[in-house]
Amino acid sequence: MNDIADHRMRAAWTRDGAAATELAPRAVRWLTQRIGRCVPGAPVAPDSALLVTPSRLPGPAAEKLAVIVGPEHVLDDPGERLARSGGLSYLDLLRRRHPSAGLDVPDAVVLPADPGQVQRVLDVCVEHDIAVVPFGGGTSVVGGVNALRGGKDAVLVLDLERLDRLVSVDPVSRIAVLQAGVRGPDAERMLSLHGLTLGHVPQSFERATIGGFAATRSAGQASSGYGRFEDMVESVRLATPKGEWRLGVAPASAAGPDLRRLAVGSEGTLGVITEVALRVRPIPESERFEAFAVDGWDRGLAAVRHLAQRGLLADVTRLSDVDETDSALALAGNWKTALLRRYLAARGLAEPCLLVLGWYGESVRRRREAVRSLRAAGAVGLGRAPGEAWRRSRFAGPRQRDALLELGVCVETLETAAHWSDLGALYERVRAALRESLDRPLVLCHVSHAYETGASLYFTVLAARDEADPIGQWQRAKHAASAAIADSGLGTISHHHAVGADHAPYLAAEIGDLGVAVLTAAKRAVDPTGILNPGKLLP
Amino acid sequence: MNDIADHRMRAAWTRDGAAATELAPRAVRWLTQRIGRCVPGAPVAPDSALLVTPSRLPGPAAEKLAVIVGPEHVLDDPGERLARSGGLSYLDLLRRRHPSAGLDVPDAVVLPADPGQVQRVLDVCVEHDIAVVPFGGGTSVVGGVNALRGGKDAVLVLDLERLDRLVSVDPVSRIAVLQAGVRGPDAERMLSLHGLTLGHVPQSFERATIGGFAATRSAGQASSGYGRFEDMVESVRLATPKGEWRLGVAPASAAGPDLRRLAVGSEGTLGVITEVALRVRPIPESERFEAFAVDGWDRGLAAVRHLAQRGLLADVTRLSDVDETDSALALAGNWKTALLRRYLAARGLAEPCLLVLGWYGESVRRRREAVRSLRAAGAVGLGRAPGEAWRRSRFAGPRQRDALLELGVCVETLETAAHWSDLGALYERVRAALRESLDRPLVLCHVSHAYETGASLYFTVLAARDEADPIGQWQRAKHAASAAIADSGLGTISHHHAVGADHAPYLAAEIGDLGVAVLTAAKRAVDPTGILNPGKLLP
Repeated sequence: MNDIADHRMRAAWTRDGAAATELAPRAVRWLTQRIGRCVPGAPVAPDSALLVTPSRLPGPAAEKLAVIVGPEHVLDDPGERLARSGGLSYLDLLRRRHPSAGLDVPDAVVLPADPGQVQRVLDVCVEHDIAVVPFGGGTSVVGGVNALRGGKDAVLVLDLERLDRLVSVDPVSRIAVLQAGVRGPDAERMLSLHGLTLGHVPQSFERATIGGFAATRSAGQASSGYGRFEDMVESVRLATPKGEWRLGVAPASAAGPDLRRLAVGSEGTLGVITEVALRVRPIPESERFEAFAVDGWDRGLAAVRHLAQRGLLADVTRLSDVDETDSALALAGNWKTALLRRYLAARGLAEPCLLVLGWYGESVRRRREAVRSLRAAGAVGLGRAPGEAWRRSRFAGPRQRDALLELGVCVETLETAAHWSDLGALYERVRAALRESLDRPLVLCHVSHAYETGASLYFTVLAARDEADPIGQWQRAKHAASAAIADSGLGTISHHHAVGADHAPYLAAEIGDLGVAVLTAAKRAVDPTGILNPGKLLP
Repeated sequence: MNDIADHRMRAAWTRDGAAATELAPRAVRWLTQRIGRCVPGAPVAPDSALLVTPSRLPGPAAEKLAVIVGPEHVLDDPGERLARSGGLSYLDLLRRRHPSAGLDVPDAVVLPADPGQVQRVLDVCVEHDIAVVPFGGGTSVVGGVNALRGGKDAVLVLDLERLDRLVSVDPVSRIAVLQAGVRGPDAERMLSLHGLTLGHVPQSFERATIGGFAATRSAGQASSGYGRFEDMVESVRLATPKGEWRLGVAPASAAGPDLRRLAVGSEGTLGVITEVALRVRPIPESERFEAFAVDGWDRGLAAVRHLAQRGLLADVTRLSDVDETDSALALAGNWKTALLRRYLAARGLAEPCLLVLGWYGESVRRRREAVRSLRAAGAVGLGRAPGEAWRRSRFAGPRQRDALLELGVCVETLETAAHWSDLGALYERVRAALRESLDRPLVLCHVSHAYETGASLYFTVLAARDEADPIGQWQRAKHAASAAIADSGLGTISHHHAVGADHAPYLAAEIGDLGVAVLTAAKRAVDPTGILNPGKLLP
């Protein structure tokens, strides 16, 4: 396929690569000046060093599972079990470097081939009272796939990677049915053969799955243009201990509460999502990324708010605060960024905040009006190069984190969202909490999802790792930030990372004890023995 | 206030009146030619003819309620109780003409002044095991406010009309908090003092309330531009038998399932909505209504679909089928419509379908591109007059129905929604069901809510009333249509009328037995003794 055909046939995001993840020596020097000297700590432990107790999966259950999925799809060797022991949070990664920290290792991994097999696997787990952890791309950063037992003797990981099909496409209604295990790039590749795209590109895009996006209420980088994942869900099919459950027959309904919205975000606690019918769109024929600089965070927020409230948001909208802008320039650390700094200073921007905007397809035409609005607000155009640079490295975050981890940096992200009038106060509270609970941290923040009534705040935290207690160090900082959010009542405990195990203690502050009681009651109705993803979502 | 200031300060819909509702003799002649001779039947019975049993409200409960809301706000005289005996469905209206049909009359009407009083009233009802029917505008057409007892000795109507305040406005976040009893025009009047509008204009606008819109997942005529009511809800406050419940702290969240979507659409079964925080927008400075004609229903649907899928939908979009177009012209029955018919015939439109489009404010600029797309699809422009005519009469439907009722016509509406590729088949099935179950009916249909993946279908049914069994006549027809929807699996039992008592038997077909089990479990968590709106929503 030549370049032009490729461009037409495949959505732009499938071509976005990961930028170089090695940090230049100058960048490392800058970082250690800011956060203090870092000592490369324990390396990733070899599997043999991690404690893997013998599988407790009962023999009769193993036999039944083998009959359902085939013996080659019931895995109990330590390597396979370790590979599905948790997700990709900083704590998850630390636990692989510190064998004594205790990984939650499942007793087996089962790989069903289709929704029917998922249902039958659940039936066996009900019969033998085995806990079940649904597993997609394993990219949870909130402990959402940790193999907790919830009081059961055995726990198995239900890996959905074999549910990898595009089941059907309805080009008239613009709906595609995808199985839960389809990863982001594969979804786009299969849809591209029909000239269609989903347009859902979270940073986890390369590994995360359709089922995971639905289970966690994911939001992609292009959420302003394509919507949050929950907005794309037309219908959903779940396997539950009480049988199969299908929800959603129409684009909109008033037939009681929208139960699709109960399934979406249920994080495997109400059922295993096996198929999702999703709204799709034609592949955009063009795209354009551009960057601007605004003087100061408050002005930047106001500029984004005006775009959102006038219906002029770009499909991708991303505003970095002063520190994140400064860090991005310092870590890139080349002659171009030096030039950019001089240019911004010459234009009188004392506290430049970088704003990256991206437009796809027909919305490229809306660009002009947005740019006019930005210039009126004092934004300085930086052209396409820095916008394109961001686009090229859009999925590089996790790899960059790996590189920092190797250097002995404590590095993690956390996020929230609030209404516009609360956003400034919440920003300050979270920053203060992180600064007070860590020694000389670098706290960076950006808005990457904007709405008419508010926006998300995404924090990146870097600090010199405390090798004596790296896990405790981050747990204390994370708790300080989470408590700042929950106690303030100003924001949500998560805008798009979900609850998992890590945010469960803060959920009641947000949805009330009654909310917890309602979710618990709903769970009991579909999962009376509590085998589904124990220890997640519900406190 | 002069006209111009008035135009700026008050949203257009507050100025829309009801067109003349008297039917011209020529229109009546045309109608009887189509559906057969109608015999004006029983008039509305005087209150004295309707059976009102003595109030069964226990004395101790009445005393406690009087302490909470003041004795003047606990009403037990027959007139007040009859006035809140059901909603405005055709069956509700018939029951007031046929005393023997049996109205469900509440034992008392209680009017709390604020959310705190609502909570305390519920506490008394829990203590004395009294059923509670939350009551807003009383415009339900699905039996949603019928005073069913659900096995309790006493039932009271909780009338929210005193919760009539605009609680707060956040102009930065563009959020307004409104109490549940605020009616459509009052909401717009109060918001207009801040230059803001909600833009929610269902046909029930003049009487229906904020709480009712939320409880029933209402969709307004401008839903393409302003969204469905559920899309506007930022947060919601409910009184429940287990205490107060508040949901929603951020514009978007991934903190588990979106429980706001469980409260919205719960129809008074999970709590009494007392306050809603809503996204608001500036009052549009201009508006434009225009009409087009498309040759044939299928072409009309395709034209609307293309607008929806290209992001070019007008804020108001309304496509009538051939029969509804024909009826509208016949019932208007003046020289202008005769001219219009000749014009359409001369342009070669054998089966004209009327398409009314309305744009508000900034979206007026999008008009040109939509019109270009429509012309390319063969639509014929009819100018602004017929569009304006529709706008002027946009809330007249209920009054027109009253006039038809007087003439002895069986007249009612019902609605559904489906994905585009199912819409044609569902349309045919519902029409066939209505035609088979009624003698010579006139079945009219329009699409008034369009989405990227599908649209609503709104049917109006007219037939000569069977005075021997008017209630049975409509019950059989309604069941035939509802069963056609539910059994086909192609559409929802309601796009914006809700479930109430009338659709409850069809809910399980749509959300599954598991869906019903989950809702039942959720209800038990907040309303363990089942006092809240019994007999509604849940089968």
